[in-house]
Amino acid sequence: MSNISIIGTGNMARTIGARALAGGNTVEVMGRDQSKAADLAEALGDGATTGEWGTAPAGDIVIVALLYDGVVPAVARYGDALAGKVIVDISNPFNPTFDGLAHREQTSIAQEVAKVAPAGAGVVKAFNTVFRHVLEKGRPDVFIAGDDARAKARVEAFVESLGLRPLDVGGLGMAHWLEGAGVLTVGLANHGVGNLDFALGVTELPA
Amino acid sequence: MSNISIIGTGNMARTIGARALAGGNTVEVMGRDQSKAADLAEALGDGATTGEWGTAPAGDIVIVALLYDGVVPAVARYGDALAGKVIVDISNPFNPTFDGLAHREQTSIAQEVAKVAPAGAGVVKAFNTVFRHVLEKGRPDVFIAGDDARAKARVEAFVESLGLRPLDVGGLGMAHWLEGAGVLTVGLANHGVGNLDFALGVTELPA
Repeated sequence: MSNISIIGTGNMARTIGARALAGGNTVEVMGRDQSKAADLAEALGDGATTGEWGTAPAGDIVIVALLYDGVVPAVARYGDALAGKVIVDISNPFNPTFDGLAHREQTSIAQEVAKVAPAGAGVVKAFNTVFRHVLEKGRPDVFIAGDDARAKARVEAFVESLGLRPLDVGGLGMAHWLEGAGVLTVGLANHGVGNLDFALGVTELPA
Repeated sequence: MSNISIIGTGNMARTIGARALAGGNTVEVMGRDQSKAADLAEALGDGATTGEWGTAPAGDIVIVALLYDGVVPAVARYGDALAGKVIVDISNPFNPTFDGLAHREQTSIAQEVAKVAPAGAGVVKAFNTVFRHVLEKGRPDVFIAGDDARAKARVEAFVESLGLRPLDVGGLGMAHWLEGAGVLTVGLANHGVGNLDFALGVTELPA
C-alpha cells in the first residue's frame, strides 16, 4: 500500500487516482484550483482527500499529472515541500505535430524535474507510454526510469498494486528514450495499429 | 515472396537469411570478403546465392546487415547500383555504454542512409529493436519507419512472410525514436527483464 499525492485535476489525474484507490492505496489530490481538487477528490470517493497547492503533500509518492510544460514549474513551486518524496513524472513533451519531442536537446522532463527538485527527493519517469484510456481499463506494461533505486522500488510496488507490470529501463537519462517511446506510441496509433486500444510492452519468448 | 539481398556476412546476416529462406524468399549474400559471402550462402543453402560487393544486388529488397558505422559508407559505395531498390537499415548505433545513441543529433542511420542513397531508392528502418537471438527463434513484432509508402509496403510483405507482424510507426524521422527503442531494449535486458528472451511489442486491449 502506498500513499499517493496527485498534483493535477485533469483526466490523467482522475484515471490514476481511481486506479490507485482500486489498488488499495490512499490518494490526495492537489490542484492550483482548490475547488477542482475538491471536486475530483469527491468524485473519486473511497477516502480521497484534498491538499493545498504548494504545501507538503501527504503522500510519499507524488505524481505530477499536468501538461508537460507545467511539470517543472510546479515542482519548482513546491520546492522544499517535496523533500524526501518520490516525484513521478508521467508527461509526454510532444512537439506540435506529435512526431517528436518539444525539446530537441537530449533531455527529458524528468531530468529537468531532477534539476529543480529538493535534495533527498527521488525522481522517476513512469506511465508516459500508456494512453489514459488504456490505463483506465487495460493491463499495460509500465516502463520506469530513475537514478534513485529506493524511489524506483517504491514506484514499482505502486505499479504492482495496480495489477500492472513495472519494467525498469535504467537510469533517469533513459527518460529521454521513454519520451521517445511515447512518440512511437502515437506513431503506432496513427499508422501501424490504427487505434488507441494498445500499449507498448514486452513480450517474452516462450521457454 | 520477396527477392532479398543481404549486405553483410555476420550473425545478423545469417539469421535474417535463414529466416527469409524459411519464409519462401530468395536470398543473395554480398560481403566485402567474397569468400565469407560464399561460405554464408553455402551454409544457408536452399538456393542462396552470392553477389559481388558493390555491384547491383539481385534482390529488390536490400538489407544492410553491417555494424552501424559501416552502413552509410556501404550504401555510398554501392551508389547507383541501389537505384530503385528498397534499402533496409537494421542497425543500432549505440554509444560505448549502450545507454544512448552514438549520434547526439536528432538523426538516425536510416536518415543518413537516405542522404547518400540514389534517387528512386526507398529507405526503411526495421528490425533494430529485435535481438538476433529472438529473431532466430521467436515471433517478435517488427517496427518499421520510412517515407516511401511503396518501400514500406514491400518490407511489410517481407516481414509477414517471416510469420511476424510489421508495425508502421510513421515516417523516416521516426527511425531516430526506433533507435531509441533499441536503447530501451538493452536497458530492459540489463534491468527490467534481466535476459535477452524478449522483444518490445504491442499488446492490444482485450475487446
